[in-house]
Amino acid sequence: MNKGIINVSVLLLLVFQLNCLWAQPPRGPYVISPVVHEDNTVTFSYLAPEAGQVLLNGQFQSGNVPMLKGEQGIWSVTVGPIKPDIYPYSFMVDGVTVMDPANVSFFPNERFKGSLVDVPGKAPLVHAMKNVPHGSVTYEYYPSVRNTTGRVVVYTPPGYNSNPDQEYPVFYLVSGTTDTEETWFKVGRANLILDNLIAEGKAIPMIIVMPYGNVEATIAEQYGLPKPADPARESEEGAMRAAQFETDLVENIIPYIEKNYRVKADRQNRAIGGFSRGGGQTLRTAFGNMDLFAWVCCYSAYLPQADMEESYRHIFLHPDQTNEQLSLLWISVGKDDFLYEDTTSFMEFLKSNDVDFTSHISEGGHTWMNTKQYLAETAQLLFK
Amino acid sequence: MNKGIINVSVLLLLVFQLNCLWAQPPRGPYVISPVVHEDNTVTFSYLAPEAGQVLLNGQFQSGNVPMLKGEQGIWSVTVGPIKPDIYPYSFMVDGVTVMDPANVSFFPNERFKGSLVDVPGKAPLVHAMKNVPHGSVTYEYYPSVRNTTGRVVVYTPPGYNSNPDQEYPVFYLVSGTTDTEETWFKVGRANLILDNLIAEGKAIPMIIVMPYGNVEATIAEQYGLPKPADPARESEEGAMRAAQFETDLVENIIPYIEKNYRVKADRQNRAIGGFSRGGGQTLRTAFGNMDLFAWVCCYSAYLPQADMEESYRHIFLHPDQTNEQLSLLWISVGKDDFLYEDTTSFMEFLKSNDVDFTSHISEGGHTWMNTKQYLAETAQLLFK
Repeated sequence: MNKGIINVSVLLLLVFQLNCLWAQPPRGPYVISPVVHEDNTVTFSYLAPEAGQVLLNGQFQSGNVPMLKGEQGIWSVTVGPIKPDIYPYSFMVDGVTVMDPANVSFFPNERFKGSLVDVPGKAPLVHAMKNVPHGSVTYEYYPSVRNTTGRVVVYTPPGYNSNPDQEYPVFYLVSGTTDTEETWFKVGRANLILDNLIAEGKAIPMIIVMPYGNVEATIAEQYGLPKPADPARESEEGAMRAAQFETDLVENIIPYIEKNYRVKADRQNRAIGGFSRGGGQTLRTAFGNMDLFAWVCCYSAYLPQADMEESYRHIFLHPDQTNEQLSLLWISVGKDDFLYEDTTSFMEFLKSNDVDFTSHISEGGHTWMNTKQYLAETAQLLFK
Repeated sequence: MNKGIINVSVLLLLVFQLNCLWAQPPRGPYVISPVVHEDNTVTFSYLAPEAGQVLLNGQFQSGNVPMLKGEQGIWSVTVGPIKPDIYPYSFMVDGVTVMDPANVSFFPNERFKGSLVDVPGKAPLVHAMKNVPHGSVTYEYYPSVRNTTGRVVVYTPPGYNSNPDQEYPVFYLVSGTTDTEETWFKVGRANLILDNLIAEGKAIPMIIVMPYGNVEATIAEQYGLPKPADPARESEEGAMRAAQFETDLVENIIPYIEKNYRVKADRQNRAIGGFSRGGGQTLRTAFGNMDLFAWVCCYSAYLPQADMEESYRHIFLHPDQTNEQLSLLWISVGKDDFLYEDTTSFMEFLKSNDVDFTSHISEGGHTWMNTKQYLAETAQLLFK
């Protein structure tokens, strides 16, 4: 690599707009990927005439699977049968991780770029697009901390527009570390899960509010600062960020939602839940604001015992009050989750202090496949 | 590549869920990219310890620029100053095109995966996130052709929720080939452009409806068929697809919007516009339904003379009627656009047939930088 060449290239840069190749139909062979077959096997394909090795990386399999180079430089492999679900995947092309260029469906995230494959199975799953009445998903801009404009995604159930006198309970639902405000919508399919449960009479029509868990990133973006790295879960910086999220939710998002949507604005009609970091933010926010939330759902997350003893003493010092106040404290985790032991310790702590909770230990790990399922289970319990 | 090894690998695939590395904090050095500096130079960075060559590809420059490998395997380059705007870019890592993993902002598209860099400049641009009242952007599901569920994105202006008696004009706005229903929102920033123009009193508060131009892709997705390639612009298949879009818009989307939103449902309060293929769809739909639209905006697109003479004879056989009916026929294109000559021929055809239109020949090419600007210009003319 010659530094002289780079400097010349940079000097030669002219500030003008080019004809956009990207806006024209793609050159070369047309690749279709992924293709899900009737037997739940799936063929993945990727165009890379020059590559030496292409691997398939996907959460439906253990380890990477080599793809075979075929005609016109299209690499492909058929895997499975895969258990019906929605899975993140990517290609590793000579060691470089890439999304599937032929697939629109993607995983919104701060740090990695993955595609999504939907294996529908014979009977439609709880997140399937079915021929039922559909709610809407709205991207809202609200006044957030430090004079920034926050983004939040809001699901309104079917009939919200046509029943102008009806008020709805609200479920605040937080995604995990490096996820964005879009992840519960695009990966978690929260809207389709609720559409289906409501159509079957299994869930009460509710509004779901999906905030962005990384308030510091919004601040950095809007003040033109470098985006800060994510702090360790139990560091001082981690606690500060969690408090910042709690402030933003309680002081900014909830008032914004209650002003702009037709909601039942009392604690019996307010739920909070979250996955991974969002589960920790859920527990801190719920236990720090017992006047606000009667329903608390924690998916693959926990609070450390030290945190409980320092910040949330009243939860276990007065378990009767806690049990009276919380209509649901739900805790779920997968057996293979890296947070499994922390979560079970948390449950032991609650149990030994007579704090009631409902738990579900599932198969699987720290995945969006699991957390979708937890949402589907808890949505049937809320506000009943 | 040994086929035997692949077969063994495929056989070894087990259908189970793994701990999700993606949901955990990222390993390795934390990369911040892009970083926009005060002088409008921008530093791009990409982590690739094993790569032999990393290039920066971006619509702010001509040709690819080599990046330099630094500490911990992070490649980077500083380019510019770049003229303030939002630009698509990607990295080419040993010949493999990838999005920037550190950047959330992306270009929704069927065929390529690009990131977006926003160079804000000193004075905020027309698409900037400013401290003004913000509208909302809603993802709707509507009953579409062949019993499918279509997706459409809807901008409602600031105050839509708080003024329950106000009705609004509607602008149907279509993106280009390989774009999706999200592209006008995520790349075109149609919502922020309108927020800013409305705040300055330059545009009338309006609803903007952003459909997916590729109806055939929705059908394929929902019937589990392979997604068909995009036909050539002037092929029979291309015309069939354009007609299909027209049918979906006129028979499904417009009735859905007029049922579910508070709109002024007459032709003087209906506009249609589009970029590239969406511009062609706009012209076909407008000229084929003169009773529906009084305002027509065509960005970097045209109709072939043969099309005009076969399908839209009344447009130029009765120019007085056409001129009376159309409050605006806007045609814009960039001097470097690959559709420049076709567009100017189209304008010559209209002119020689005494059909009135307003045109803007801009600098630049077939880019979203240009089409954003065209939207900002035309939004100030509509419904006045």
